[in-house]
Amino acid sequence: MPDHTEPLHEVAHLGHIELLTPRPEESLHFFHEVLGMEEVGRQGESVYLRAWGDYERSTLKLTASGLGRGWTTGDLGHGPAYQFTDPDGHLMEIYYEAERYQAPPELRPALKNQPQRYTGRGAAVRRLDHINLLADEVTPNRRFMESLLGFRLREQVILDDGVEAGAWLSVTPLTHDIAYTLDATRTRGRLHHLAYWLDNREDILRGADLFLEHGIAIESGPSKHALTHAFFLYAFEPGGNRIELFSGGYLIFAPDWEPVVWNQAERARGQAWGLRLPPSFHTYGTPVVEVPAASLRHVPVVGPS
Amino acid sequence: MPDHTEPLHEVAHLGHIELLTPRPEESLHFFHEVLGMEEVGRQGESVYLRAWGDYERSTLKLTASGLGRGWTTGDLGHGPAYQFTDPDGHLMEIYYEAERYQAPPELRPALKNQPQRYTGRGAAVRRLDHINLLADEVTPNRRFMESLLGFRLREQVILDDGVEAGAWLSVTPLTHDIAYTLDATRTRGRLHHLAYWLDNREDILRGADLFLEHGIAIESGPSKHALTHAFFLYAFEPGGNRIELFSGGYLIFAPDWEPVVWNQAERARGQAWGLRLPPSFHTYGTPVVEVPAASLRHVPVVGPS
Amino acid sequence: MPDHTEPLHEVAHLGHIELLTPRPEESLHFFHEVLGMEEVGRQGESVYLRAWGDYERSTLKLTASGLGRGWTTGDLGHGPAYQFTDPDGHLMEIYYEAERYQAPPELRPALKNQPQRYTGRGAAVRRLDHINLLADEVTPNRRFMESLLGFRLREQVILDDGVEAGAWLSVTPLTHDIAYTLDATRTRGRLHHLAYWLDNREDILRGADLFLEHGIAIESGPSKHALTHAFFLYAFEPGGNRIELFSGGYLIFAPDWEPVVWNQAERARGQAWGLRLPPSFHTYGTPVVEVPAASLRHVPVVGPS
Amino acid sequence: MPDHTEPLHEVAHLGHIELLTPRPEESLHFFHEVLGMEEVGRQGESVYLRAWGDYERSTLKLTASGLGRGWTTGDLGHGPAYQFTDPDGHLMEIYYEAERYQAPPELRPALKNQPQRYTGRGAAVRRLDHINLLADEVTPNRRFMESLLGFRLREQVILDDGVEAGAWLSVTPLTHDIAYTLDATRTRGRLHHLAYWLDNREDILRGADLFLEHGIAIESGPSKHALTHAFFLYAFEPGGNRIELFSGGYLIFAPDWEPVVWNQAERARGQAWGLRLPPSFHTYGTPVVEVPAASLRHVPVVGPS
Repeated sequence: MPDHTEPLHEVAHLGHIELLTPRPEESLHFFHEVLGMEEVGRQGESVYLRAWGDYERSTLKLTASGLGRGWTTGDLGHGPAYQFTDPDGHLMEIYYEAERYQAPPELRPALKNQPQRYTGRGAAVRRLDHINLLADEVTPNRRFMESLLGFRLREQVILDDGVEAGAWLSVTPLTHDIAYTLDATRTRGRLHHLAYWLDNREDILRGADLFLEHGIAIESGPSKHALTHAFFLYAFEPGGNRIELFSGGYLIFAPDWEPVVWNQAERARGQAWGLRLPPSFHTYGTPVVEVPAASLRHVPVVGPS
Repeated sequence: MPDHTEPLHEVAHLGHIELLTPRPEESLHFFHEVLGMEEVGRQGESVYLRAWGDYERSTLKLTASGLGRGWTTGDLGHGPAYQFTDPDGHLMEIYYEAERYQAPPELRPALKNQPQRYTGRGAAVRRLDHINLLADEVTPNRRFMESLLGFRLREQVILDDGVEAGAWLSVTPLTHDIAYTLDATRTRGRLHHLAYWLDNREDILRGADLFLEHGIAIESGPSKHALTHAFFLYAFEPGGNRIELFSGGYLIFAPDWEPVVWNQAERARGQAWGLRLPPSFHTYGTPVVEVPAASLRHVPVVGPS
Repeated sequence: MPDHTEPLHEVAHLGHIELLTPRPEESLHFFHEVLGMEEVGRQGESVYLRAWGDYERSTLKLTASGLGRGWTTGDLGHGPAYQFTDPDGHLMEIYYEAERYQAPPELRPALKNQPQRYTGRGAAVRRLDHINLLADEVTPNRRFMESLLGFRLREQVILDDGVEAGAWLSVTPLTHDIAYTLDATRTRGRLHHLAYWLDNREDILRGADLFLEHGIAIESGPSKHALTHAFFLYAFEPGGNRIELFSGGYLIFAPDWEPVVWNQAERARGQAWGLRLPPSFHTYGTPVVEVPAASLRHVPVVGPS
Repeated sequence: MPDHTEPLHEVAHLGHIELLTPRPEESLHFFHEVLGMEEVGRQGESVYLRAWGDYERSTLKLTASGLGRGWTTGDLGHGPAYQFTDPDGHLMEIYYEAERYQAPPELRPALKNQPQRYTGRGAAVRRLDHINLLADEVTPNRRFMESLLGFRLREQVILDDGVEAGAWLSVTPLTHDIAYTLDATRTRGRLHHLAYWLDNREDILRGADLFLEHGIAIESGPSKHALTHAFFLYAFEPGGNRIELFSGGYLIFAPDWEPVVWNQAERARGQAWGLRLPPSFHTYGTPVVEVPAASLRHVPVVGPS
């Protein structure tokens, strides 16, 4: 992707993610009961979900695997979308019209500045935070997001042989809306994980207790990342997709932010408090080639309606 | 201020705040020992301070009161600044060149993506969050910030008689970088409070314990706001200025955010959990007329240096 | 009560509490859905409940008001009980045989050293902590508990006129299993509140968020007590009884503990962070005269079976 | 030790611990600055320390290694002590007269029911919690504590070959005041770790951040134990001794508590959230043979003075 290309002004943020699952009922139970998300609609083989603090109608589309694509005229929660794939083959889309979530009576919040009541059910994740995509090569995907979509590089891992092993990018002050990390198996189009935000580290500890009681396999954590220095917990939903609970880290307000570059020796030290991620973390991913993986909302030039 | 004026593209965020104090030594002790901030320089009658997560060199200038102005060629931590006053008379400035903080050896962080080590001293506030200015009339000040500086209105209080009693504005996804609230005494140019951010509600509870042990007067909290639904604690530093510890709330990613408007009856219900703020909250402010109250960093068209 | 009476060796701890409610269905919803307790049995007009960390089968008996007494041969969860009233008229009982809780399959914990799984439902209170009884006169009731039941005085409030306004007593290292506080209305046999324990202050903040969303009236807090210096939240269950969520404070290991005595001026300073409790806190109570209010388990001399 | 021996009525709790260090200055810096303890005296080669919530004058005696014994007439903070060794050779003592801590003006607490102000310095550990001693054989040491000192067995690990690999014992409602675990190197008289209590899990996460910034080697955690289900963090103080920060877990009020017995397969599952402790945890200990390792306070029959 040529660097001189003008970025597409102005992508606003990560909109929603579609996950494929071979075990749709168990996955739905996980997102509804264990993560505490709300179901807001069903269509075909898909169930649409939202966290209590998401302002759009839905941030997660859970689809029984095997479904084909073909929804360029829009989807539940947003209007017509332009679909494209990143260099690694992950299907993405950009859309302009989004439906703001209107809570039904039983989910109406006590405070009018919340989109939905806090139910407290399960881990009660608050809002979609970021997605981490595996890529056969990180660099072309990172450049694609920078050049065409206006993402900014925030943190980066460069190995001793010069290979870019990871790139954390955002269009918002979050440390990353999207990350690309090297797929050790050299497979294309896979998902590493998607992450939902919680407000306090304590909320994630509570999430770990709930995962324990629900028999959800914890892969690693809760602990503190070195990159982003956020607090995290990785687990697998029944469909096999890796889910992260995420809190803390930092916001980037500097307009001239210089990416933080980590070398191989620095990464070899493990996470912030010394924890080593297990081998599965570097090899396991789930296929998302044939379905939309991430949506990005477009902000018009003349101002939003 | 005419609404058709083009806003000044693109103010980045709240930069720093200057506080006047009649008790400079006690105030310095408060910000250094009790809030846990670092001193990064002295000049004239002023001491410059920073929180551990601030990326700029300084976010607080603490000045023995009585000092005149006159520093339009820049200040410690930033280059030339354009000074102006808002309609209510608070002196402000915008600057382009900012000095990024370089931690000395004893404050170098263990993680390279932190600007400074976390010392854990005192409440260990993390970064400047927002400023709340009292105004004789809210509306002209709010319009000034919207029209000329590109701020967006996020939340608002409108009384039964149509008077705008408060406006919460931001150029970032924070719920407010600056708020204007009605000065019940009809004085001009006063400060209501400035706020530093902490990552978890628990950090604020710990701050309250420290205020108790240090004999710092707590005005209200810790509790939960209705507006912004953030967690808060208000106290007075020895110089008399009201300081807020702030955590949580929400981030605004929606490009077409609709301001949340609260009416008189809704405000009469108190804070989120029913707490009533004491009378002092609605009448007490400190003078900031003659000194710069807030700085806003300018982002150039061709990209930051 | 004569001071020379030998105390009854050896009362172990607070066993369970019976609450009267004129709105049994709404009260049950509160304890089950909002506080997150489990129902473990029904008998007559009563529903028996437990918190997830209670080791006995039940710690709360919720009874539709109007029920008479008459269960000296035992009750659900324990064997024969000796009933008596304290000087103020609260009915109490002591029992020896208790049924240890055996979790059914769906509530079996992941860790074998927990009596029940952590469900995370509602505030998810952990275990019964203490009861606070109103009394026309504190002193005779306090002496009764000390002399006959072996309770130790931990903290105490003595007014300027010498009146004992409150006594906090325990047989365990908790700061209190039972407190007596002066009934400002000079009514006899009333309950001030009962308290359930949570492990972290953050759990109580979460409880406050849930009370807000469920429309449960918060009377005061979350904040920090001066006496016991524990973290607290007071609310009213639909039947009108005051419920406290409680965490922190201190444990008493000193065998020669000297009671902490607070005078009128010290109490006038409010709670630890300056909060003033509302007038209702000093006047409102609920009748428990005609039903058992607290149970105390007897430890035999020859050792437990 | 014969089982029919009458236990010594009535040991009250763990009193204090003496640690040997080959690097006394660095160790003192760790306990004072990083853990946030107070120095309360010096004598010979020893420095005496306390946590802010300890009611006795001192709970930790830090001694430059090489010191001989010989203080049976008492020590700073307590009167004459009866010294003895457990079967594994750890030197212990029991004493009757203890000096209650009297805070000097600069450490006087805001609340009169605290023994000392909360300074917030470093991790600000609250009180001594427990000690874990390595033993060549667990069983004789466990029986010694049960038979002679009246400790109760709370949790236990029995391997497939019948070997008792660990015993958690207490005279208080804590899950353990003292634990014995098998010394994999078959050395006698070694310390595994000592633990200080903090009130909330969040306090331990903050402790981990401070250890990171201070360059203190974290061995494992923060995470959640399976046994005791408490939250923990293990690190090494500069003298090489393993220190644990500890919070949560459960209190035992049942007079007829049945020990929780874990078998080899159950232990092989790792900690509560799946974390595996590193090999060092099972092999590393520090010598405490020649100095007092733990003190136990005696409660007289006729009641404390």
